[in-house]
Amino acid sequence: MTNIKLVIEYDGTNYHGWQSQVNANTVQDTLASAIYRGTGENPTFIGSGRTDAGVHAMGQTVNFHTCSDIPADKFKYVINPFLPKDIYILNSTEVPDDFHAQYSALKKEYVYKIHNSPLRSVFQKNYAYWIGMPLAFDNMAYACKDFLGMHDFTAFCATGSKVKDFTRIVYRSELKKDGDFIIYTVQGNGFLYNMVRIMIGTLIEIGQGKMPKDAIPEILKGKDRRKAGRTVPPQGLYLKQVFYE
Amino acid sequence: MTNIKLVIEYDGTNYHGWQSQVNANTVQDTLASAIYRGTGENPTFIGSGRTDAGVHAMGQTVNFHTCSDIPADKFKYVINPFLPKDIYILNSTEVPDDFHAQYSALKKEYVYKIHNSPLRSVFQKNYAYWIGMPLAFDNMAYACKDFLGMHDFTAFCATGSKVKDFTRIVYRSELKKDGDFIIYTVQGNGFLYNMVRIMIGTLIEIGQGKMPKDAIPEILKGKDRRKAGRTVPPQGLYLKQVFYE
Repeated sequence: MTNIKLVIEYDGTNYHGWQSQVNANTVQDTLASAIYRGTGENPTFIGSGRTDAGVHAMGQTVNFHTCSDIPADKFKYVINPFLPKDIYILNSTEVPDDFHAQYSALKKEYVYKIHNSPLRSVFQKNYAYWIGMPLAFDNMAYACKDFLGMHDFTAFCATGSKVKDFTRIVYRSELKKDGDFIIYTVQGNGFLYNMVRIMIGTLIEIGQGKMPKDAIPEILKGKDRRKAGRTVPPQGLYLKQVFYE
Repeated sequence: MTNIKLVIEYDGTNYHGWQSQVNANTVQDTLASAIYRGTGENPTFIGSGRTDAGVHAMGQTVNFHTCSDIPADKFKYVINPFLPKDIYILNSTEVPDDFHAQYSALKKEYVYKIHNSPLRSVFQKNYAYWIGMPLAFDNMAYACKDFLGMHDFTAFCATGSKVKDFTRIVYRSELKKDGDFIIYTVQGNGFLYNMVRIMIGTLIEIGQGKMPKDAIPEILKGKDRRKAGRTVPPQGLYLKQVFYE
């Protein structure tokens, strides 16, 4: 058996998220069906983690064991023709037998795109979150640095989550301007449910002057979801990369 | 009665083109219904011209007469909330009574986007035409200059067209590189059916070395559709702007 790692890009607009579901169109099920059509095998495969409906990926990572004798680096050429145009295997490689796309992951990088312009763009409707009123970018860029380091992120987790440990380490937290876009990049050893989307909702309230630019340490300390900003919509969110050793 | 001009952006992915049709979802019908909901009026309105299914617009232009006392520049704020997220009024102004979005147009500008990269992008599937093999950009940029000026464009018109006069003037014909994209901009006094898409299909064959870089004058002279390149898909095409006096 060969253990194969795939790096996958997908447009989440038309899917009910990553995770396999009965009676719903998911990325995982679509990929499984393409692998079946390309190899005749029906492997159990492991993703690095879920993404919600509407969330995109530039580097979702998956592994599975196969008896197929297709060389690992040729797998993408064999499977891609069986995938719809909104899912694409960027890369396929052989990995050690104990590689596990979820448990072997060291950190993940997400990107969130805000389209900050007085004019809505029809071309961004599925790919960024539109905010018509100007945002105080400098205050947001200042505030996002307070996410860096190890914190209890309870305040930035959707209520009802069943996790026990809310502590996560953020290695990178950066806001950049690119024309009409404000682009947030965050790297962490793991993310709680809706964590990035609540972090962005909070940064936006800071950008709108509804919260001071030094609000975040206080919110982290309070561990109260109601003190953080709202959960912003999924279409601005991209799973950019999963890092392994 | 006031004559109102609207400049409209739309994502053509989910529409059967601009032009009103029975039993099909078109941009014109969707706009008409929003105007009705916003004003209670059901005006006849005139677009600068059709766009095909899947073709986008950054500046489709429309006019209609209204008895509404909404100030012309406020029209966009009144109608936009009734439009779906893939249609958006960028601008609304009052124009002279004899302004006609089609007949008053002096020239139009179209843009065509080619995504030229060994890797397909899921995010571009509806917004550019993907070509995986490298294209000889310099030869294409050289060749596109041969479209400039007044020519009989019979060879670059879909067969079966009912037009009598195939002569058109091209004022601007330019190819630019932008990262993995090759972007073509063309301005003309008018365009035949599929003309831009056949022009691009021909430039691509030049870029692939299937035709020499000086092939275009010969093809124009021959007036034979079969000598030009294929018709490229609609999703790379954008009606960028319509020019009036």
